Amino acid sequence: MISLNHALDIPLYRQLSTQIMESVVRGELLAGDTLPSVRALAGDLGVNMHTVNKSYHELEAKGIIEIVPKKGAVIKAKEQKISTKRLEGLSDEFRPIVVEALINGMNQEEIYMLITNIISKVRED
Amino acid sequence: MISLNHALDIPLYRQLSTQIMESVVRGELLAGDTLPSVRALAGDLGVNMHTVNKSYHELEAKGIIEIVPKKGAVIKAKEQKISTKRLEGLSDEFRPIVVEALINGMNQEEIYMLITNIISKVRED
Repeated sequence: MISLNHALDIPLYRQLSTQIMESVVRGELLAGDTLPSVRALAGDLGVNMHTVNKSYHELEAKGIIEIVPKKGAVIKAKEQKISTKRLEGLSDEFRPIVVEALINGMNQEEIYMLITNIISKVRED
Repeated sequence: MISLNHALDIPLYRQLSTQIMESVVRGELLAGDTLPSVRALAGDLGVNMHTVNKSYHELEAKGIIEIVPKKGAVIKAKEQKISTKRLEGLSDEFRPIVVEALINGMNQEEIYMLITNIISKVRED
């Protein structure tokens, strides 16, 4: 159920990674599930194989999937507790956007509301 | 007081944009202040002029600065209220990172705490 939008400012590989992560959050993809091969998914989506490859490598770096020889990209079991390293990585990713929100005059409460809305949307979609 | 880290995964132009935005949040850069010319800043930081140029264009697109002919990059006055378009843009930027936090087992409260920590850090630094 992936739909990529060429008109957005967000690179296609990031759109793909995000949508795969959202499927995991919604329980549509479970630990042990295998993603389509790079070639097959690129064909289905009508994008370059490089795009799918880049997305799978991003998901692997984020610890969401594991590339298993002869099996392909497999969804990993969730960690019980987020590692300090990953938490720092997330903090680094959040920081520029939090700063952008602050500079646009949003306060902490308003940022919380934005996050709450996003969480509901991700769970509903 | 800009310091760019070549070892980070974050592109240099984004590091630069973020640090300029943080200076605005802390009140070190005020509306009407002019940023150094692209050539001067690139020279000071020892980076390509293209990097500074890309950062200034990003800041312009985000409504943080205005490129004024013969004057250069000028910090804009804060909007009284965030526009719907900018709010949607921020939501699109937050979404993949919120999803990544959820997939790493963080709940809403933990994401709030992460945001609160970032806000304190930005204001202190």
